[in-house]
Amino acid sequence: MSRWEPDAAARLERAALELFAEQGFAATTVPQITARAGLTTRTFFRHFVDKREVLFVAERELPAYVASVTAAAPDGLTPMQLVMHGLASATATRFDPWREQLVARRAVIRSDDGLRERELLKGQVLSAAVEQGLRARGVPDATAALLAPVAVAVFDASLDRWLDGDPRPLAEIVAATGRELQAAVAA
Amino acid sequence: MSRWEPDAAARLERAALELFAEQGFAATTVPQITARAGLTTRTFFRHFVDKREVLFVAERELPAYVASVTAAAPDGLTPMQLVMHGLASATATRFDPWREQLVARRAVIRSDDGLRERELLKGQVLSAAVEQGLRARGVPDATAALLAPVAVAVFDASLDRWLDGDPRPLAEIVAATGRELQAAVAA
Repeated sequence: MSRWEPDAAARLERAALELFAEQGFAATTVPQITARAGLTTRTFFRHFVDKREVLFVAERELPAYVASVTAAAPDGLTPMQLVMHGLASATATRFDPWREQLVARRAVIRSDDGLRERELLKGQVLSAAVEQGLRARGVPDATAALLAPVAVAVFDASLDRWLDGDPRPLAEIVAATGRELQAAVAA
Repeated sequence: MSRWEPDAAARLERAALELFAEQGFAATTVPQITARAGLTTRTFFRHFVDKREVLFVAERELPAYVASVTAAAPDGLTPMQLVMHGLASATATRFDPWREQLVARRAVIRSDDGLRERELLKGQVLSAAVEQGLRARGVPDATAALLAPVAVAVFDASLDRWLDGDPRPLAEIVAATGRELQAAVAA
């Protein structure tokens, strides 16, 4: 094992998802995960607080990422166009290579009440980040507070469709789901 | 103390909210709550599992209530009209007498991370109830899944405005917030 493990977090994540799928989240221990990944528990705890955090590591970057995507949007967009632009940028390339792992992750989360609750918090973090990003672009507070959960609803529904087997790229599903929501809300 | 306490739950709720506001949620014990209410701890545990449940008692009836309101809506409404009709019925008279207690409740919940997480679960329960109610009225699954979080967003934003001091009746705020959301999403 080399002294530096640049892909250690990714290897640990893959090993953890395999074990969660094979034997359940509750029955899986950190030493089992590190043995499967060929790494030490010390390396594990340099990257994660506990085995649960392996499932939520992507969330750490979420607020900064949403902020940068919203800040980079062109001028002259309406608040809803800002939301859809942000979702399009965020899903353009970032998720597509991870589909299989995200399917496995979703199955693990659905299997455990505590993980489902933790996943709700993630939605809240995303919503707060979108709200903050919209405000930073001059969207009035009241509008930002209403559109942030709409953005999360579009994202969650799109991700579910994609993980359920919709063959289109995620960004295309997001655009279509956004149009569907607009039509349903307007009607 | 009479053997039967028909308003025991309401008295316990009032006493608990007072004590949470005075000395904090964490520092308040069940015996303190029952002493303030002039009731026994045995009575407390006939109504609530623990002191936290006092803050979430209204949620127990939520799914059945949303289902009945959606089922009672007139024929010929679009899915979004069904959502707004349900919100209007649910907020017509039910909340107005409880404003002061709901302001106190919100302050307690905001003071504690665990309570904030629990409150998120409540939003999820409401969303699932709305989704189920829409499906029962023949709304396609995909549309119901998109509109349910929209309903929760309108309800949450309206409740916050009302508790922040908006002097209009809650149902009027809900109708205005729904129109605002429609305008923002359409733009």
